[in-house]
Amino acid sequence: MTKIELDTGVAPFPKPAVLLGAMVDGKPNFMNLAWLTRISFKPHLWVLSVPKTRYTAEGIRQQKKFSICIPGKDLVVELDYCGITSGRNEDKSKIFTIFYGELKDVPMIKECPVCVELTVFDEIEMVDRLLIIGEVKHIYTEERYLTDGKLDQDKIGILSYTQPPSAYFLLGEKVADAFSVGKKLRSKAGTS
Amino acid sequence: MTKIELDTGVAPFPKPAVLLGAMVDGKPNFMNLAWLTRISFKPHLWVLSVPKTRYTAEGIRQQKKFSICIPGKDLVVELDYCGITSGRNEDKSKIFTIFYGELKDVPMIKECPVCVELTVFDEIEMVDRLLIIGEVKHIYTEERYLTDGKLDQDKIGILSYTQPPSAYFLLGEKVADAFSVGKKLRSKAGTS
Repeated sequence: MTKIELDTGVAPFPKPAVLLGAMVDGKPNFMNLAWLTRISFKPHLWVLSVPKTRYTAEGIRQQKKFSICIPGKDLVVELDYCGITSGRNEDKSKIFTIFYGELKDVPMIKECPVCVELTVFDEIEMVDRLLIIGEVKHIYTEERYLTDGKLDQDKIGILSYTQPPSAYFLLGEKVADAFSVGKKLRSKAGTS
Repeated sequence: MTKIELDTGVAPFPKPAVLLGAMVDGKPNFMNLAWLTRISFKPHLWVLSVPKTRYTAEGIRQQKKFSICIPGKDLVVELDYCGITSGRNEDKSKIFTIFYGELKDVPMIKECPVCVELTVFDEIEMVDRLLIIGEVKHIYTEERYLTDGKLDQDKIGILSYTQPPSAYFLLGEKVADAFSVGKKLRSKAGTS
């Protein structure tokens, strides 16, 4: 039961496996993104981290708006391709059917079950990275991914990226409901 | 196949389900944390978002250091309890065996398969939230969670939080290896 130390380079928690989209020099481009989280409810803000020099980062800085598209299991090859290939070298938009929403020139992927349009709320330089704070403006899906009017993650086939091992996973067994199962440990009415 | 719009309040990608720990007024405290991601390799930086008024946020601001402990499936009740109960009202440290590492007064949970000590690299106020940028200083585990010297997520039982539905899930089926399966779409040697 003795604790041992590991190299500090691991981050052994599940991360999303999604596609970050933007127009770069007038051309739709997409990259694989795992470094993303929600940070606020009012307004609905998400933060993501990209290298400052990344091609997609240039597009987001140009346009001040971008998309996040959530692929299902069937798009895992395309997702990974977008992570290992730069839009400087190949036109990645050709592998998808592109559509546009309310924000007009923000490219989204028709084959993805959920696509989100965001505007840039803030940009923060952090070492060699750009933290982009995005405000969620519109979320698009299709009727076939809903159950009782709500998104159904089993119908989407939501993917996680984890490391180690460096791989994409489906969600598995539901262990417990959140904001619920912990009530049994409360000794009195605590607040969160 | 027509796209329909959803309420902008959903964030349908997997998030980690971990415990954020800090000393607050000299007492170990832990909260449930899902809004966490990695943001940099050099140095190893992670970002998390907490309400400015949160009890744990006070501790992090006091000490400029904190912990992130990664629970397995067996700790799901304790994890959820730490999300629905404030340390202002109940002493949450009593439900865990606390240990300390190199940073001395950063409380960690012995029952968690992986515990990480971080120092505050930066703090950013964002609406009613505090974005805390943490630099990973030490990562602790036990031999029984390793396979061939590497963390084994099946042995840990790593949890995700997703919404909808608001619940904790184990990782499921491995779909593909990352930085690998997408190579078949490359038309020439692209770079990431």
